[in-house]
Amino acid sequence: MKLNLNADLGESYGPYTIGNDAALLEIVGSANIACGFHGGDPLVMARTIARARETGASIGAHPGYADLQGFGRRPMQLPPEELRAVVLYQLGAIAGVAAAQGHGISHVKPHGAMNNQACVDRDMAEVIAGAVAEFDRELILLAPALSELARAGAAAGLPVAHEIFADRSYQADGTLTPRSQPGAVLHDAEAAALHVGRMLDAGGLVTTQGAVLKTPIHSVCVHGDGSAALALASGLRDSLRDRGIDLVPLPQVPR
Amino acid sequence: MKLNLNADLGESYGPYTIGNDAALLEIVGSANIACGFHGGDPLVMARTIARARETGASIGAHPGYADLQGFGRRPMQLPPEELRAVVLYQLGAIAGVAAAQGHGISHVKPHGAMNNQACVDRDMAEVIAGAVAEFDRELILLAPALSELARAGAAAGLPVAHEIFADRSYQADGTLTPRSQPGAVLHDAEAAALHVGRMLDAGGLVTTQGAVLKTPIHSVCVHGDGSAALALASGLRDSLRDRGIDLVPLPQVPR
Amino acid sequence: MKLNLNADLGESYGPYTIGNDAALLEIVGSANIACGFHGGDPLVMARTIARARETGASIGAHPGYADLQGFGRRPMQLPPEELRAVVLYQLGAIAGVAAAQGHGISHVKPHGAMNNQACVDRDMAEVIAGAVAEFDRELILLAPALSELARAGAAAGLPVAHEIFADRSYQADGTLTPRSQPGAVLHDAEAAALHVGRMLDAGGLVTTQGAVLKTPIHSVCVHGDGSAALALASGLRDSLRDRGIDLVPLPQVPR
Amino acid sequence: MKLNLNADLGESYGPYTIGNDAALLEIVGSANIACGFHGGDPLVMARTIARARETGASIGAHPGYADLQGFGRRPMQLPPEELRAVVLYQLGAIAGVAAAQGHGISHVKPHGAMNNQACVDRDMAEVIAGAVAEFDRELILLAPALSELARAGAAAGLPVAHEIFADRSYQADGTLTPRSQPGAVLHDAEAAALHVGRMLDAGGLVTTQGAVLKTPIHSVCVHGDGSAALALASGLRDSLRDRGIDLVPLPQVPR
Repeated sequence: MKLNLNADLGESYGPYTIGNDAALLEIVGSANIACGFHGGDPLVMARTIARARETGASIGAHPGYADLQGFGRRPMQLPPEELRAVVLYQLGAIAGVAAAQGHGISHVKPHGAMNNQACVDRDMAEVIAGAVAEFDRELILLAPALSELARAGAAAGLPVAHEIFADRSYQADGTLTPRSQPGAVLHDAEAAALHVGRMLDAGGLVTTQGAVLKTPIHSVCVHGDGSAALALASGLRDSLRDRGIDLVPLPQVPR
Repeated sequence: MKLNLNADLGESYGPYTIGNDAALLEIVGSANIACGFHGGDPLVMARTIARARETGASIGAHPGYADLQGFGRRPMQLPPEELRAVVLYQLGAIAGVAAAQGHGISHVKPHGAMNNQACVDRDMAEVIAGAVAEFDRELILLAPALSELARAGAAAGLPVAHEIFADRSYQADGTLTPRSQPGAVLHDAEAAALHVGRMLDAGGLVTTQGAVLKTPIHSVCVHGDGSAALALASGLRDSLRDRGIDLVPLPQVPR
Repeated sequence: MKLNLNADLGESYGPYTIGNDAALLEIVGSANIACGFHGGDPLVMARTIARARETGASIGAHPGYADLQGFGRRPMQLPPEELRAVVLYQLGAIAGVAAAQGHGISHVKPHGAMNNQACVDRDMAEVIAGAVAEFDRELILLAPALSELARAGAAAGLPVAHEIFADRSYQADGTLTPRSQPGAVLHDAEAAALHVGRMLDAGGLVTTQGAVLKTPIHSVCVHGDGSAALALASGLRDSLRDRGIDLVPLPQVPR
Repeated sequence: MKLNLNADLGESYGPYTIGNDAALLEIVGSANIACGFHGGDPLVMARTIARARETGASIGAHPGYADLQGFGRRPMQLPPEELRAVVLYQLGAIAGVAAAQGHGISHVKPHGAMNNQACVDRDMAEVIAGAVAEFDRELILLAPALSELARAGAAAGLPVAHEIFADRSYQADGTLTPRSQPGAVLHDAEAAALHVGRMLDAGGLVTTQGAVLKTPIHSVCVHGDGSAALALASGLRDSLRDRGIDLVPLPQVPR
């Protein structure tokens, strides 16, 4: 069985360093690279792409809102025409920087508030998926399993990769338990590996109530902010390998 | 004889409108479109490209420094690696927005201080020309005649279009007379048309001393800031047509 | 009877000009000056303050969200501690620029989305009023009549000036009729003057149903975007003067 | 004998953390706090001021160029009127944030390129010193010893504190040896302490040639970027205390 691990990378800006890019690139098969709006800048992008190439990670665009101070985590309401342009701009920008290195991008994963909103807002999801399809119909849309974004991607004719979260529990409707509630976050690598294993075995999201919501699973999102997150990510990787799972770049996961 | 008129467009930002895009698109064959760094934003870019398509103008990237407040007119010294990334990012961004409209960009013209510095700084010129060539070796580099930028473009194997300024006089070395000096700027449409006509006839820049510096001439840059500039541009267009010159989009000018 | 007219000014940015500051300063007694977040920059602020001094207009801080592209009109949710700091920063900034001209600011009026949200969100209103009081307890808070912001200002011990809108109709609960509904906006100077006159006579907001919601009225907000808005503003001024009303800077309106 | 140690603090931005503020506040008597242009944001400023209050450090404004990506280290040429407004804006902004905590700022030290340029450019130095004096004639201007900035401060009637660098060697003309040259930077705490001690004893800058350029010395600038810099700073502090020097906030150093 083939599976992908993905992480957000290249979110540093000018003199400001954030994240553990080098460590994460030892773990993941695919990098979601910030495109200069919520984080990243042209030079950071160029260097992050170069590093990802060295490790063999596939690269994807990680477009976000133009809100550096809020790191793209503050919800915004953009008119559809503007949201579409904002996504296209960032897809083009990272593709341009990558092309100069003889590299292409192979997937797209929206960032932060843009992603969260598109998971539940059908109109937004359609605008984003539509923009990706207009840019390049072969780009994989990496979207949370069972989200509006995943559905919109399929409707737009895009290849869709469904992602799950190793360290978050799921509610009855398939959405993440809000961080404010107990049991929302798994802090332990072993527990996270068990959680992921259970979902892979069940072929779907496993809710806190134990129900299974059927969905294909192509990728697992991991984080690198802090040593605990990093330990969880590498523990998960080891555990998945121990299960005989082949961890590969996103385009190599069968869909 | 075929000639191109070009102008800078799409430099508005959010609620801020600047320039006379609609009027200029009635005059020019090619639009240099700001890419969101010194001016422009994704929505402005999308709309400007759409308008240019309607008039048949060819479109080019107009990359600049990330200095909205200074409108890209404040000189900066970027390390070569960063300058390269900054150019690639903007080329990609506008290509992405244009591609979604089924349009491509056909030329590149740096903006403001980036352009001015690259006209006299060989290293900078090479970095910029190199970035354009890495992005797409068929893009025309639109550069001031006899500048380091024009030379670097040719050396990088790019098609180069040499541009002259209708409303500026040239010094003995082929550089523009500084605005601080008398006679630097021609304010009259007729005088500008005469100036351009003289250079076309001579096959080169005509300096204030009357010398001719041989150069091919493919395009004339016009401006739209203020009614006087606009009148000069339309007067020049009429005058060139009266001379039997065919005003065309940049890719149609023989090189 | 004394009354104040106020308008938003100084919202230009770098090379980008917006609004009709010169014309509005012929009409209003008080200027709400942008503080560099949603519009304005240090140089624009300095020049706007200098111009306001020449006409005798009193000046106020017009703090907004740090969202130049959205002109501070996109709603944001800032944590209270951050909202407080954002307001204090802008109050200090404009006070600093004004102090160097021997001038002081005499009022505060939040801009755009920050204002709109604070009119209905009690917690936000309290944070803003609290920040103003911490900065200078003598600053007048210029707030829409009957809004949460006005109430929070009074509770914080600030002098509060209640403002009405000349060109907008009021709903039964004292809020503005949404622009999407018919009759929301008065486009005619005469109708606006009548509307304002009726509210002054009634001593309160007059709703579209004809009910009167009692409130003191200290100031009328006018706009300058477009020749129609400007004509409405000057027509209103003339009409109020014809009624024998003394139009004065905000600090001179009795409270 | 009383002496001050100063360091740059509060340069984090939104989600981006930079520097070792907590560790530096254990060492220095005065904090130069970024004002939101080259680094810092309103919330970071408020928190940094609160922390400085807890340690008893005096606080100063650390205004810089509006260049977050370049961290205020890229030289810019601003017209005098704009430079003046840019400084006043930042002085006011930090004073506003501090005032709400019942705190005042007691000194000003320009940042990065603005500081470097003002050390050798008399016109710039006069504009900056003039802006500080217009804002508050009692603010101490913290400037490199023997710089144009120090001279301009005195000429503007400001109290001037002369600072030296513990880890940099001085050339014959009193300027810092460029980092590109050997011996420019002292990496060792002991060597730095010796260097500072020698200058305190000599009552002036001690050049690499051993000459003494007489100047009062009120403060020593230390850095916290990296564990080596931090070790140098704390080693220097200990060494100065061992010499019987009383390390105090800047206003307590006799001038």
